[in-house]
Amino acid sequence: MIDQLKGSRILFAENNFDSLIDFLNDNSSSQIFVLTDENTRKHCLPLITHALKNNFTINNIEIESGEHNKKIETCIFVWNKLSEFGADKNSLLINLGGGVVTDIGGFVASTYLRGINFINIPTSLMGMVDASIGGKNGVDRDSIKNQIGLISFPLLVFIFPEFLKTLNDRNFKNGLAEIYKHGLIADKNLWNRLLLNKINRTNIKEILVSAIEIKSSIVSEDPFELGKRKILNFGHSIGHALESCLLNSEGQQLFHGEAIVAGMIMETWLSEKYCGLTPEESNEITNNLFTIFGKENFSQLDFDEFLGYLKHDKKNQHQQFNFSLLNAIGSCKWNIPVSKSDVKIVFDRYNAI
Amino acid sequence: MIDQLKGSRILFAENNFDSLIDFLNDNSSSQIFVLTDENTRKHCLPLITHALKNNFTINNIEIESGEHNKKIETCIFVWNKLSEFGADKNSLLINLGGGVVTDIGGFVASTYLRGINFINIPTSLMGMVDASIGGKNGVDRDSIKNQIGLISFPLLVFIFPEFLKTLNDRNFKNGLAEIYKHGLIADKNLWNRLLLNKINRTNIKEILVSAIEIKSSIVSEDPFELGKRKILNFGHSIGHALESCLLNSEGQQLFHGEAIVAGMIMETWLSEKYCGLTPEESNEITNNLFTIFGKENFSQLDFDEFLGYLKHDKKNQHQQFNFSLLNAIGSCKWNIPVSKSDVKIVFDRYNAI
Repeated sequence: MIDQLKGSRILFAENNFDSLIDFLNDNSSSQIFVLTDENTRKHCLPLITHALKNNFTINNIEIESGEHNKKIETCIFVWNKLSEFGADKNSLLINLGGGVVTDIGGFVASTYLRGINFINIPTSLMGMVDASIGGKNGVDRDSIKNQIGLISFPLLVFIFPEFLKTLNDRNFKNGLAEIYKHGLIADKNLWNRLLLNKINRTNIKEILVSAIEIKSSIVSEDPFELGKRKILNFGHSIGHALESCLLNSEGQQLFHGEAIVAGMIMETWLSEKYCGLTPEESNEITNNLFTIFGKENFSQLDFDEFLGYLKHDKKNQHQQFNFSLLNAIGSCKWNIPVSKSDVKIVFDRYNAI
Repeated sequence: MIDQLKGSRILFAENNFDSLIDFLNDNSSSQIFVLTDENTRKHCLPLITHALKNNFTINNIEIESGEHNKKIETCIFVWNKLSEFGADKNSLLINLGGGVVTDIGGFVASTYLRGINFINIPTSLMGMVDASIGGKNGVDRDSIKNQIGLISFPLLVFIFPEFLKTLNDRNFKNGLAEIYKHGLIADKNLWNRLLLNKINRTNIKEILVSAIEIKSSIVSEDPFELGKRKILNFGHSIGHALESCLLNSEGQQLFHGEAIVAGMIMETWLSEKYCGLTPEESNEITNNLFTIFGKENFSQLDFDEFLGYLKHDKKNQHQQFNFSLLNAIGSCKWNIPVSKSDVKIVFDRYNAI
């Protein structure tokens, strides 16, 4: 166990499900449901079903994968399924999947019969280091990211690193992006370790523990994001707006990690102007992010549409953009007002590269 | 101020809105929205707009009145409106209406941008003594009452008894039902006061204060309904199932209070068998409830359909009916398993009268 916050425990599995079985035995439920998408139903659910089959009966509820399914209609589908199965207040929902599954499952469980217990078992790297931890859940509305949702903590987050072996390279890099962010906002040592060794599926375990500890510790200090938790949003003001634009377009969908890498690069440039980040550190950050993650092509994006989405950023106040920006590698400030024209400058600078 | 629980204050107005204005000044918001239905927009909103006009700008969002509109589609409409108005995380939603408005508004506010502040200004007696207090919110799903929702406390509950003058007799009696229930479950003295004098719009103020104090005190003892709060559900297991049946039918809609009076009568009979309520007190309760509220006609209801809805009661566990029942006037127990056949007996007994 790494941490305990607001009723939410994090358990690291040792290549088996024994600690999960113990936990389920200690927290008896009237029925157990496992929410999956078609991928985790195929690749991950059989492992769980097999491990639990002597002790528990499991009902599977399956939703379609993909960010475009993170919408209220999918929640209605899952609420209906729970009701059809006769799920009562003492039922348990296990969310087995990446960010989309844990975001939807957390919201559905927290609102079904005014809240039933749920457990997150993230299967993606993004899920393990970010989406499944910290209690944020929700769905997009009209392409606006996470506009409807809650902060509501799972009973348990169960980390089973073996699942990482099922990920392709693009999905693995997607999660790495958040780990780099954790280093940039809170732990220069982690950032340096990430630059020293190329991280892959086999050498990631220690890095994973560090990244989860950083996120857990920030969340437990400020669970409802009244202040410091906002630093976890570094790269996300611009990143979410980019995602929204592309969710709404016909072209290639951007992964969350890809969007926030671009967001981190642009917000690093803003950090120089607004937050005292030195040009040397700014270059160190942006050069490395470009080298490791590459550059996205946003030339087809309309800046005004992008700005329209940026206006919906949850950190904004009184119709003013409020960013979380770096003052140094490993240190981040929040509630920094940023002008529209400076957002335009970094947006153009990125696209001109 | 009567009570303070989990961040939720209750203010009693003295025929003006001064204390509301002070509260709004102390809790500055970026924008203020008032949720109404067509009735409260017409009869109540003008008073508020007039009182606040020198200090605040208000945007009205209107939904259609009626329990059949307490559904997720109405929430989507209100989320969309908030988004169109550019509501940010620092916005405030004032729910001005009866139980439908405060239930929907509380849920929408608690889930918009993962939660914005909200204030309840109940305009019905039912709202003042029950729906607006205690943080329960939500919507019906497929005729199942409050299946989707949360427990989430308003920043303030503002009680303005003058609004009671806008209620017709049926609506007034609807709220009275919950006041009788408050007496039955927790305060024999209140029950006796209710029997001594016929309560009307002009002599209700002291009774109102007592009823609100009872509910507040039970809620603050057990805000998330892990135990004692379940006594507030006396009459509601059967009452909600009756409401659901009738919501789903073509005929006359039943008001919540009407359904729970019938529920209280049937559950009083169950209390004799399961909870040691004496036949004398049982008769005192049922005779008075029949005299004051009359008898509903459920002859068209199908018992199996009714039972289907009863299975969705939130208090049930492991597919067993769990009721809150009286052991005496003014005292209530919870988590009492009740058999299907005994539910059938009291259902038939009611209909045979």
